[in-house]
Amino acid sequence: MELIDGKKISAEIKEEIALEVKKIKQAGGKTPHLAAILVGHDGGSETYVAHKVKACEFVGFESSLIRYEDDVIEAELLAKIDELNNDVQIDGFIVQLPLPKHISEEKIIEAINPDKDVDGFHPVNVGRMSIGLPSFVSATPAGILQLLKRYNIDISGKHCVVLGRSNIVGRPVSILLSQKADVGNATVTVCHSRTANLKELCLQADIIIAALGVPEFLTGDMVKEGTVVIDVGTTRVKSDKTKSGWKLKGDVKFDEVAEKCSYITPVPGGVGPMTIVSLLKNTLLAAKGEIY
Amino acid sequence: MELIDGKKISAEIKEEIALEVKKIKQAGGKTPHLAAILVGHDGGSETYVAHKVKACEFVGFESSLIRYEDDVIEAELLAKIDELNNDVQIDGFIVQLPLPKHISEEKIIEAINPDKDVDGFHPVNVGRMSIGLPSFVSATPAGILQLLKRYNIDISGKHCVVLGRSNIVGRPVSILLSQKADVGNATVTVCHSRTANLKELCLQADIIIAALGVPEFLTGDMVKEGTVVIDVGTTRVKSDKTKSGWKLKGDVKFDEVAEKCSYITPVPGGVGPMTIVSLLKNTLLAAKGEIY
Repeated sequence: MELIDGKKISAEIKEEIALEVKKIKQAGGKTPHLAAILVGHDGGSETYVAHKVKACEFVGFESSLIRYEDDVIEAELLAKIDELNNDVQIDGFIVQLPLPKHISEEKIIEAINPDKDVDGFHPVNVGRMSIGLPSFVSATPAGILQLLKRYNIDISGKHCVVLGRSNIVGRPVSILLSQKADVGNATVTVCHSRTANLKELCLQADIIIAALGVPEFLTGDMVKEGTVVIDVGTTRVKSDKTKSGWKLKGDVKFDEVAEKCSYITPVPGGVGPMTIVSLLKNTLLAAKGEIY
Repeated sequence: MELIDGKKISAEIKEEIALEVKKIKQAGGKTPHLAAILVGHDGGSETYVAHKVKACEFVGFESSLIRYEDDVIEAELLAKIDELNNDVQIDGFIVQLPLPKHISEEKIIEAINPDKDVDGFHPVNVGRMSIGLPSFVSATPAGILQLLKRYNIDISGKHCVVLGRSNIVGRPVSILLSQKADVGNATVTVCHSRTANLKELCLQADIIIAALGVPEFLTGDMVKEGTVVIDVGTTRVKSDKTKSGWKLKGDVKFDEVAEKCSYITPVPGGVGPMTIVSLLKNTLLAAKGEIY
């Protein structure tokens, strides 16, 4: 069993991006600039956005953090998005989700210019990804593909079972894995809460992507020998063993499953660290005008 | 074994649409208007567009056919699309594919205003469909869903194997079947030319959607008893038994497979007749402003 080290890979990619940014600057080019809109003070969102700002600093990007209180009205956010869409200094920007209930996430996402939508949530980017056209691919699916690629895990023709059909992980990763592409050409089965024979399907899988958000859902009796397991779950559960009182739990019962795997991602330190580098990569692509 | 009669179902739906159009007209509403752009004189395209015009007539739509010769330049098509986008008389329009090689299909499709894109090929419609937002769903996937619905075939929790990952059939139908929806919640496996264990997967399937475009690909030994088989293949093969010298062949070896099925679509007369009614339905939805 080999552990897929997302921390190491993400550090490598950050170094690669930093090097490229350095070259761009040396050649007199514009410094890539990522902006983030953060509404309210949700703990998870605060942490995540803080990581993004720090990562931007590390690779040499400029970054802007635009804050609003929880009671901001939709029109004000839309006006700011319009401003960012038209600001030539900003290469890409994100609106940190979730948003307060009085604001339509759909409306906000659709207001972002697709060519600055480095989160890849705009329908144009989702649609282009699905059709196989150049697009901004959202962070978690892109991160999963990078892990498979950098560990030279061949998925072509293999049976990949995706647990979960969410718009931000299960659905896009299932599409990407089965496309005609370098990291692609897998036979992909999408399972979800309604799947009747889930265990049977998992036992056939060469690769399992667990993205249900149910802690320790995938147990040892559900995987065959030699399976590759990618654990996307990150549920916060109470713990008396950590200083914070919380602990991250994946969708995989690690101890049982790991011993049967050829490769497996840990939680934390697997897929998690990859999401921010995917965002940085998209921002770099936006700055270089490589998608649109 | 019950034959799924696409001809009968499509006739029913046409009657339903005609009735609704009659009511709209009686209430003083605007007659739905579908326009089609046809470039060149490809035999298949000519036939298909002629059917569309006839179907519009039957249900009481207005229709416009705009013709160009093969040597039309891209800019002229784009100008016409812009005109149709802004013509309040036109509720929806399509550009019949394929186009001559000197014209970018991607550019043409992306020029169509998504809210008049009744073919559902624009990335915005593909993306919205994928996310589960209201959208124009392209004709063949929509037709397949209608057949399953009108024959009360329950797919929730069932294992559905889709053969083919094309942008116009395999990919969208695989997404739709696995979504949280009335006709949905299936466990879906997408197979394609690179799939290693295709027969094994087909033998597990409760429902098979064959959309590879390989005549008689699915044989009797590949399906279990009671399977529902939807044959999307329509390859023209030479025949000395027809007046035209041609015959349509599906992806399913009908004689062998049919006897094992609970339901099966024939070719012709299965999925084929459903595509035009799906287009009519989208045009009606566009006229009523029900998607955007």
